[in-house]
Amino acid sequence: MQIAPNGEALNQKAVVLLSGGLDSAVCLWKAKEAGWILYTITYNFHLRHSKEIQAAEKLAEKANAVEHRTVDLPFLKEIKDSEIDSSHPLHKILDKVSSAYIPMRNTAFYAIASSWAESLGAKYVVGGHIASDHASFPDSTPEYFQLFNRLLKTGSWTGRVQPIRVVTPLSGLTKADVVREAVRLKVPLELTWSCYERGEKACGRCPACVSRLKAFQSAGVKDPVEYEYSAPSTKL
Amino acid sequence: MQIAPNGEALNQKAVVLLSGGLDSAVCLWKAKEAGWILYTITYNFHLRHSKEIQAAEKLAEKANAVEHRTVDLPFLKEIKDSEIDSSHPLHKILDKVSSAYIPMRNTAFYAIASSWAESLGAKYVVGGHIASDHASFPDSTPEYFQLFNRLLKTGSWTGRVQPIRVVTPLSGLTKADVVREAVRLKVPLELTWSCYERGEKACGRCPACVSRLKAFQSAGVKDPVEYEYSAPSTKL
Repeated sequence: MQIAPNGEALNQKAVVLLSGGLDSAVCLWKAKEAGWILYTITYNFHLRHSKEIQAAEKLAEKANAVEHRTVDLPFLKEIKDSEIDSSHPLHKILDKVSSAYIPMRNTAFYAIASSWAESLGAKYVVGGHIASDHASFPDSTPEYFQLFNRLLKTGSWTGRVQPIRVVTPLSGLTKADVVREAVRLKVPLELTWSCYERGEKACGRCPACVSRLKAFQSAGVKDPVEYEYSAPSTKL
Repeated sequence: MQIAPNGEALNQKAVVLLSGGLDSAVCLWKAKEAGWILYTITYNFHLRHSKEIQAAEKLAEKANAVEHRTVDLPFLKEIKDSEIDSSHPLHKILDKVSSAYIPMRNTAFYAIASSWAESLGAKYVVGGHIASDHASFPDSTPEYFQLFNRLLKTGSWTGRVQPIRVVTPLSGLTKADVVREAVRLKVPLELTWSCYERGEKACGRCPACVSRLKAFQSAGVKDPVEYEYSAPSTKL
């Protein structure tokens, strides 16, 4: 799958959202393959720790990004920690959704990335959301990004002449597809970090590790990242 | 003009964006008049200084807001300071627009306010954008907020059952209308701060002071804020 439409001029600037994990690393290498001039941005909020931030920095450097920014968003932690009264009809819903869900998180992320993109004269903002994200995160679906792109066109000055567009090149892929893309693109997988824990090695037990290990297994690829623990079924 | 549709239940929670200036103060008192439970949020970015932040705090306290947050967004300054190469076709456009324009600023502001609103179980997010803002800020128009509200419905879990809605009760008003509303609602105008400068008194010469003084003059109301300078034509 090509990220850029056929005949698209090379040397367009793109801002790539980089978490330090597998999906966004593959996005970065897809943008590199498209011949775009790369700028990368990482958000530092409550689920992030230094391993992820460092992984993002290393990936940006390895991909020859022109500039890498780490933006602190501590208030997303504070907001997430707020509590809806348990008698409130919304409580039941928010209680059921993924613990990684933060209301309107992606709107804040893509607004900031697009703000930078507009100042740079960049044409694209690139984010890695895969098919399985859609069920847990309503702000990761193709429908959501279609609306966000309309907002970018309507809500900015440059939208009048050359709208910035958010592209999500992994949106039809499974995690195993992403692993296969990573291999094809020669993404330095050893630099990525997906684990939620803070250990020296990836824990191998948290939901992020389990999903990653399963994807590598399903793609028939060995994960170069070291794990404290990997279940017999996920070993190659 | 009533902020809430007829028959709307009282005691809904609302998050009000508060800059410390005249427009957002009037918004806050309109939300108070509607009987909503008030939460207020102020963004600290490069155009803001302590006078405005303090004005917002005082207004929130005076309006009996349940909670007031000041959220630091220093990166909006960094982003604004980035430069598009002067040969870029976008340069001409961005060069012409208001110096107060920051790309996608309101999308970041309303995403964060809506994130808090969702965590609180609030139904409304309230912002003060008046008719004359629309020409300078494409992210302040009714069309923009209509799209943003669709994004809120599509991009959040609570959107499925009880969408949060951004309301902009001043969007049809001139600044003089806002002054008249302020008088009707008994807004403590002496606590508001509009001046861009950092003096003890408002400067009376910056674009914010000039526009405010004209509005008070046009509404036939004396501005209780003290000015270093007020042009003869704007004195009452």
